[in-house]
Amino acid sequence: MLDFYYAPDTCALASHIALEDAGAHYRLHRINFGKQEQRRPDYLAINPKGRVPALVTKLGVLTETPAMLAFIAQSYPAAGLAPLDDPFAFARVQEFNSYICSTLHVAHAHRMRGHRWADEPVAIAAMQRKIPESVGACYAHVEDHAFTGPFVMGETYTIADPYLFTVAQWMEADGVDPARFPKVAAHREMMRRRATVQTALHAESDAVET
Amino acid sequence: MLDFYYAPDTCALASHIALEDAGAHYRLHRINFGKQEQRRPDYLAINPKGRVPALVTKLGVLTETPAMLAFIAQSYPAAGLAPLDDPFAFARVQEFNSYICSTLHVAHAHRMRGHRWADEPVAIAAMQRKIPESVGACYAHVEDHAFTGPFVMGETYTIADPYLFTVAQWMEADGVDPARFPKVAAHREMMRRRATVQTALHAESDAVET
Repeated sequence: MLDFYYAPDTCALASHIALEDAGAHYRLHRINFGKQEQRRPDYLAINPKGRVPALVTKLGVLTETPAMLAFIAQSYPAAGLAPLDDPFAFARVQEFNSYICSTLHVAHAHRMRGHRWADEPVAIAAMQRKIPESVGACYAHVEDHAFTGPFVMGETYTIADPYLFTVAQWMEADGVDPARFPKVAAHREMMRRRATVQTALHAESDAVET
Repeated sequence: MLDFYYAPDTCALASHIALEDAGAHYRLHRINFGKQEQRRPDYLAINPKGRVPALVTKLGVLTETPAMLAFIAQSYPAAGLAPLDDPFAFARVQEFNSYICSTLHVAHAHRMRGHRWADEPVAIAAMQRKIPESVGACYAHVEDHAFTGPFVMGETYTIADPYLFTVAQWMEADGVDPARFPKVAAHREMMRRRATVQTALHAESDAVET
């Protein structure tokens, strides 16, 4: 049994969907950012970074979405979530996920988390003004160079798909018009109808209501 | 034969060292950032992101350091650069590399590349002022929570080691005193004496002089 720590509307959704795709047995634990639960000692003992997601396994704790997604794919090989026997194809999946993590998600984070990189309100406001441009440039790269279709890697669903879907949920709030990126937008609609995505989204919204 | 594109003093050094560790056959291609060669059409045809590193294989091009490092480890299994048969141990290596890529390197990038996230000089200056604190906090996390010693993962060298060594080269320029982080500092000194690291560093500095 795994224990998965998440907060709604965060990148944790990607691993949550992958756990559903894998058919994993896991308990879901919501961390309430509004109550600063990510800073409580009991959660910091799990993830000293004070962020989500965190996956508690019998061997120890894992964090960082690209690592967690690859771990889920490798731990449940029957689910076929990554080309595990082909180092180059696996690297292409990882390349995509690394770009989402270190470039697209980072660009997005300057809207709400500018305090990580500057203290002055004028600087944080300047970061927020650039979000539509900086995040939009990331989607332009994905649309033009990194996305094959209908899934990210082509005909086969992989752990790149729930990650792109997760960050693409934030496009409108980031001031990025999905209509500019028809392949990404079509992928988002297709993913939204997927059973495992529905299960994960409902589990996260149900937990919010309790 | 592989073709590896790098620029000196960038994160490309991590993959360069790993190629040496793997005993790979590769040609080294220097991209001169001073001449904006990363923006030339012939390089953008290789890596449309206009960044380094890029690794051209017979199957296609790879970018993104964590993906490239895992690819090198998987492609040269005899070199023993990652625990390939243990998904959890492999995930721990990837978790470390993902943190370097998406948090530590990103914090550092606000010193020289603030224009990615804001336009106004006052904002870029504010980002630069925070570098010692934001980058220092990343090293505090590595020192206290992510580093085992003597190598990142413990007794065995992995692809996490050249990546930490590479970014740790930038500590002084980022205003971070290595003496605050004795484990990271000792690792840097040990790595500097390693034959494959010496080979990669000399190859990069020789190329600069020509």
